[in-house]
Amino acid sequence: MAVDTVTMDQIVSLSRRRGFVFPSSEIYGGMGSTYDYGHYGVLLKNNIRQRWFEAMVLERDDIVALDSAVILHPRVWEASGHVEGFTDPLVDCRTCKLRFRADKLEDSQCGRKPSKHPGEFSECDLTEPRQFNLMFQTTVGPVEDSGSRAFLRPETAQGIFINFKNVLQLARRRPPFGIAQIGRSFRNEITPGNFLFRVREFEQMEMEFFVPPADSEGWYHYWIDERLGWYLRYGLRRSRLRVREHGPEERSHYSQGTSDIEYEYPIGWSELEGVANRGDFDLMRHTEFSTTKLEYVGPDGDRYVPHVIEPAVSLERIIVAMLVDAYDEEVVGERERTVLRLHPEIAPVTAAILPLIAKGEGMVAKARTLYEELRKRHSVEYDDNGAIGRRYRRQDEIGTPWAFTIDDQTLSDDTVTVRDRDSLAQERLPIGGVRAWLDDALERDWQTPKGA
Amino acid sequence: MAVDTVTMDQIVSLSRRRGFVFPSSEIYGGMGSTYDYGHYGVLLKNNIRQRWFEAMVLERDDIVALDSAVILHPRVWEASGHVEGFTDPLVDCRTCKLRFRADKLEDSQCGRKPSKHPGEFSECDLTEPRQFNLMFQTTVGPVEDSGSRAFLRPETAQGIFINFKNVLQLARRRPPFGIAQIGRSFRNEITPGNFLFRVREFEQMEMEFFVPPADSEGWYHYWIDERLGWYLRYGLRRSRLRVREHGPEERSHYSQGTSDIEYEYPIGWSELEGVANRGDFDLMRHTEFSTTKLEYVGPDGDRYVPHVIEPAVSLERIIVAMLVDAYDEEVVGERERTVLRLHPEIAPVTAAILPLIAKGEGMVAKARTLYEELRKRHSVEYDDNGAIGRRYRRQDEIGTPWAFTIDDQTLSDDTVTVRDRDSLAQERLPIGGVRAWLDDALERDWQTPKGA
Repeated sequence: MAVDTVTMDQIVSLSRRRGFVFPSSEIYGGMGSTYDYGHYGVLLKNNIRQRWFEAMVLERDDIVALDSAVILHPRVWEASGHVEGFTDPLVDCRTCKLRFRADKLEDSQCGRKPSKHPGEFSECDLTEPRQFNLMFQTTVGPVEDSGSRAFLRPETAQGIFINFKNVLQLARRRPPFGIAQIGRSFRNEITPGNFLFRVREFEQMEMEFFVPPADSEGWYHYWIDERLGWYLRYGLRRSRLRVREHGPEERSHYSQGTSDIEYEYPIGWSELEGVANRGDFDLMRHTEFSTTKLEYVGPDGDRYVPHVIEPAVSLERIIVAMLVDAYDEEVVGERERTVLRLHPEIAPVTAAILPLIAKGEGMVAKARTLYEELRKRHSVEYDDNGAIGRRYRRQDEIGTPWAFTIDDQTLSDDTVTVRDRDSLAQERLPIGGVRAWLDDALERDWQTPKGA
Repeated sequence: MAVDTVTMDQIVSLSRRRGFVFPSSEIYGGMGSTYDYGHYGVLLKNNIRQRWFEAMVLERDDIVALDSAVILHPRVWEASGHVEGFTDPLVDCRTCKLRFRADKLEDSQCGRKPSKHPGEFSECDLTEPRQFNLMFQTTVGPVEDSGSRAFLRPETAQGIFINFKNVLQLARRRPPFGIAQIGRSFRNEITPGNFLFRVREFEQMEMEFFVPPADSEGWYHYWIDERLGWYLRYGLRRSRLRVREHGPEERSHYSQGTSDIEYEYPIGWSELEGVANRGDFDLMRHTEFSTTKLEYVGPDGDRYVPHVIEPAVSLERIIVAMLVDAYDEEVVGERERTVLRLHPEIAPVTAAILPLIAKGEGMVAKARTLYEELRKRHSVEYDDNGAIGRRYRRQDEIGTPWAFTIDDQTLSDDTVTVRDRDSLAQERLPIGGVRAWLDDALERDWQTPKGA
C-alpha cells in the first residue's frame, strides 16, 4: 500500500480523466453541484444498484420492489411534514443581495465586500433568518394556480408509504415485510458541494420494513447489522466504517432511534447510510390526511399499525465511499501507477482482453474469439490500442480486476496470461479454460489487499 | 388462441389485479396520468431495460453509455429549440374557465354547459389559441428570478449532445459511434391518457448514433431494421408491427427522415419507437449556443460535424405493447384462464417452485432446497399458498413460463413436474437436473404460440 489518505481532488480528477463522472452542462459553464455519468460511471452505478437490489429484494422472501412517481399528489408532502418542515434557515445580505444559510454562516462571505475572516459580516446587514423549503416546486397542468402546484420528491420513502395498502393486498404480505425502492430524488440544496457528496439530484435506495410494534427495536438493530455487513461484503475496509447513534436532540420528533453508518471520507467521518426506527409516524399521518386506514388486519381480525424501520442511502455516497476506499497509488519498479482496488462485482469492467500486438493478425483473431465468448456473461473490454503497459495502467485506473493477454506463445500453445490487478501476479492458463477460471474467480471470497 | 383482440381495460385490470401498475397517489384521489409500479412491474421494467442495454451497449463495440442530469443548464433548452417550440396550442373557455387543446377540440366539452356533441362549444366563448410549453418549470437555488428558472428534461437526448465532446475524448471514439442513455423524462401533457401510453413522467431509452454525413442514409435504415428486429427477438408478433415513414409535412424542419415503428395497440396503430435522421442540427445548435465546437477531428486533421441517427422509445410504450401482445384468455377443460405469453427473458418471474401440499414437510424441504439453488441465477418464486390450480393460474397471469411442482412422487424418486405455461404440457425431470434444464430452456429459440 502506497497511500493512506486520499483527497477528494484525486477522486474528482480520476473520475473525470477516465470518464466516470463529468460536471453537468459543462459546455454551458456548468450547473452547480450536478453531474453526468460517463460509460464507466454508468456501469459502476448499474453494479452497485444491482448488488443492493439482490441483497434487499432478490435474495430475500420478505421484501418486494416498488417504483413510484417523482411528482406525487401534493398532499403527500403535507402529510409527510415536508411542506412545513423540510427547510433551511436563510439570511439575505443587504449589501451583496446573496443568500446564505443562517446555520452555516461561518463558511460564508459577503459577495461584494468579503471580510478576511469567513463568517464575519460586519460590513453587511443581514436580514433575520427565514425558512426556505428545499423541495423543488413545479406546476402540473396548464393553469398556474395553487391547486396545481406540485413538488419533485425529496425522498422516495413517501411513495412507499402511500402504496402500503396496495402491497399488503396484492403481494399477500404480513409484517414483518418490506418494500424497497430505487429512484431519483431532488433537493434544492443551498450549499451543495464536495463532489457527489451533496448534489441536487441523486439516486436513493430506500427500504421501508413494516414490523409488529413490539419487535421494532430488534429489527432496528438487525438492519444496522445487515447494512454494515453489505458494505464489508463489497470491500469497504472496516476501519473506515462506524455506526453512530443519534442523540435525542438530533432525532426527528417521531424517531424512536436513528443510527448513521458513517464512512471516513476525505472530508472526515460523515453519513453514508441512515437506519431509522420511524415508529408509526408515517402510516398514521397518511391515514389522517388521506382518511384511508393504513394498518394491518390479521386473519383473526387483530389489527395494528406497523412500525417502520428504514435503511436509506444514496447511490452517490456509496460511489464516493467505494472510490475513496479503492483508490491507491504505488510505485511498481520505476513506474508509478494509480489503481482502483474495487470489488470484482462492483468494478465496471470484470476483465480486459488484450492482444499483445494489435497488428498481429493471429493474436487479434484469438483475442476477439475469447472476447466474444466472455462478453455473453461478463462485462469485458477488448483493447488493442497502444503499448501493453499503457493498456494495463488504463485498466488499473478503471479498476478492472483481471487482464487476459494474448501473445506469441498463445499462437503456439493456446495459453494466455492472466494478470491480477492487485498483486500484479501473472500466470498462464489454457485459453479454453479462461471462462471457467473467471467464473471461479468471481465465486471466491475477495480478500482486500487494502490497508487497515 | 382464444382472443384476437384485447382491450386496454383488460390490460389495466390485469396490471392492477396482479400488482404490475397502480394509479399513483391513489389514497389521495390519484394524480392524473401518473402511475406507480408494483413488484412485478419493477421486475418487468428491469428486464426490458436490461435487454435494451444489452442490445444497444453491452453486445456492441461502437456504443457507450451515459447518464445525465434531469435538470440541465437552461440554455440547453434554448439551443435545442424546446423553449421556443415545444408547445401545444391551448384555448380558454370563458364559461367554465377550463383549458383545451385547440387542435383536439373535437374531443372536448365545456365543463359547465356541455353540449351533446363533443367539440361543439356554441354556448361557450373560446379565446384565441395560445402556445403552452410542455416542459415542467422549476427554480434552482434560493432566489426566484428568471436567472434561476430551469426545466425538467422533456427528453434525454440533449444530455447526450452536450456530452459529445467528453465522450469523443475520453471514450476514444470516432464516427460511426453511439451514446446511449436510459432515464426519466417529464412532459406537462395537457391531454394525457390511455393508461401508460401518454404519461407525465416516463422512462426514455435513447441512443444517438454519430456518423460521417455521407453515410447517414445507410445508418438510418440500419437502425430501423435493428430496432424492428429487437421487438421480434423479444416476441412481439410481426403482424402487429409496421414501419411508417413520416411525410415531409410531419417532420421537424431539421429532420432528414423519420420513421415510426408502429404497434397495433387496442387504440389503433400508433408509435412504439421513432427512428430519426436528425442531420447535424443538434451539434450545430449547441456549437452556436455554447461556442464550444462540437465536431470530429480526424488523425489527419480532417474535420466534420457528424450527422445523428436517433432510435428513441419509452419503456412505458414497450410495456403496453408487450402486455397487449402477450395477453390471452382461453378455456382449458372447463375452466377459463388468463395468461401472459411473455418472452422468458422479459417475464418478471422465470420459474415458480410449488410444493403440492404446503403442510407436506418433506415436499416443502425439497422445494425450498430447489428454490435456494435456482434463485442464485434466476428470478424464481416459491409459493405454497392455496390449491395448486389456483397457484398455476396466478403464475399464468404474471406470465411465468415454467412451474416446477414437488409432489408425493418426488419424495420417492426425486423427480419433479415441469409445467409449460403456453402448451400446458407437463413432464417429469430429475430434481438434480432442473437447473441445467432451465439454462437450456432459456437458450432455446422461443417460438411464439401466439396468433398471427
